[in-house]
Amino acid sequence: MISERLAFAERLAIQAGELGLEYFRKLDTLTITQKGHQDLVSEADRNVETLIRKELANSYPDDSILGEEHGIEEGTSGYTWITDPIDGTANFVTGIPQWCVIIACVHQGQVIVGVIHDPVAKETFTAAAGQGAFLNGKQIKVSTSDSLSNGSVGVGFNGRTAVTDAVNVIGALVSKGGVFFRNASGGLMLAYTAAGRLIGYAESHMNAWDCLAGMLLIKEAGGVVMEQDVNNSLYHGARVVVGAPGVFGDIREIAESSFAPLEAAE
Amino acid sequence: MISERLAFAERLAIQAGELGLEYFRKLDTLTITQKGHQDLVSEADRNVETLIRKELANSYPDDSILGEEHGIEEGTSGYTWITDPIDGTANFVTGIPQWCVIIACVHQGQVIVGVIHDPVAKETFTAAAGQGAFLNGKQIKVSTSDSLSNGSVGVGFNGRTAVTDAVNVIGALVSKGGVFFRNASGGLMLAYTAAGRLIGYAESHMNAWDCLAGMLLIKEAGGVVMEQDVNNSLYHGARVVVGAPGVFGDIREIAESSFAPLEAAE
Repeated sequence: MISERLAFAERLAIQAGELGLEYFRKLDTLTITQKGHQDLVSEADRNVETLIRKELANSYPDDSILGEEHGIEEGTSGYTWITDPIDGTANFVTGIPQWCVIIACVHQGQVIVGVIHDPVAKETFTAAAGQGAFLNGKQIKVSTSDSLSNGSVGVGFNGRTAVTDAVNVIGALVSKGGVFFRNASGGLMLAYTAAGRLIGYAESHMNAWDCLAGMLLIKEAGGVVMEQDVNNSLYHGARVVVGAPGVFGDIREIAESSFAPLEAAE
Repeated sequence: MISERLAFAERLAIQAGELGLEYFRKLDTLTITQKGHQDLVSEADRNVETLIRKELANSYPDDSILGEEHGIEEGTSGYTWITDPIDGTANFVTGIPQWCVIIACVHQGQVIVGVIHDPVAKETFTAAAGQGAFLNGKQIKVSTSDSLSNGSVGVGFNGRTAVTDAVNVIGALVSKGGVFFRNASGGLMLAYTAAGRLIGYAESHMNAWDCLAGMLLIKEAGGVVMEQDVNNSLYHGARVVVGAPGVFGDIREIAESSFAPLEAAE
């Protein structure tokens, strides 16, 4: 049952967020070195993922689990859970209160459940395939903007592809009257796009655990998502270009003219 | 007394943040049009500033007050309060929980008090001239980073100067191994720089109410701030280039090679 898995993922993301928040508050109150911070963050990342894996294995012992920290654990049910225990790690490590827990579930090449939880702002974005997208239980829709000059576009920047990818997108965007946004959590920026806070998002490459939940949220909120082969992106990640219907074409054009080919960049 | 004015500004920013947050939650729970959002935000901006002005006039009736929404009110004491009731308005209007209340006080061409309050994350950054910088009462320091590749630089983008200013900064920054950040609240990004969360910040032009409090915070947290004539920037705004001591030189070099001359751009 999709809705059972959704409810489970929602509860789990909130529980995992509580544990993440405990570490985050510790970073805030302890006076430790940058190196010490990094160690504590790595511990937080690992332990939050361990909590998620344990709860998943208890409730869905036959499902596969793919996480950023501990890799793949193969199951037999045909369902695969994908999680980024702390998305926005650079924010987390320096104390910027903009990070999130991401949990998605894939079945037969389709993302069926997506949850993005922000423990600081207490916002939980949820979607199940065909059932709409919600923020703290209230339905959300993408922006009604029909122009790049009306709203901001999130831009992702990562260490895996050409550094010029993001620069080119921003240059093309502002030359067309647009505004860019980058709060360094791809998960949050995708959730913001689903909620109509940003009008779209573009990143030359994201890993499955960072993007699958958000892409489902955006689809279910009425947005447009550049087609991806989910089974492939599960293991190799994907190019992410998404937007409200009125601006998606413009954003895709900007992305196509800005990003180096993915194969060449990897 | 500086410390009395600081304590007053801190209480006032928190009180103003509560009122702002009431409006912000209303935006979140009401289903209203984008136009309706804009009206409610304008009302929030005005009413938060009115609250701040009223409290200031009660406690410091002879001080001047300069605010984004209602302009200048001239006093006789030689002290001037400067406030941006809601910094990060584009975030506020779309529901992104990243905005802040800013209050600064200037005396004899020096910023003597600076407060930046984030009501959602419940973070209050405070500084008084010569007395250090604090976050929720705990002393903060700028980053110890000595390389652009270690940490992120905040980049401001505004409608007042050449759109290429920010694009050029980002291009130069990533070409030197740096990472950019823009969560669309200049006040928060300056506060984050003071707290060592970002290693620096560059924007081709900021208004006094957006930048003076943050610049004092950064100085008091051990950071470097490009010199400005405060009396001039009070009315005309300023170019803002700031950073941790180990990276300020690099950030200034990037800004100098990236920004169009301010006179030409205005």
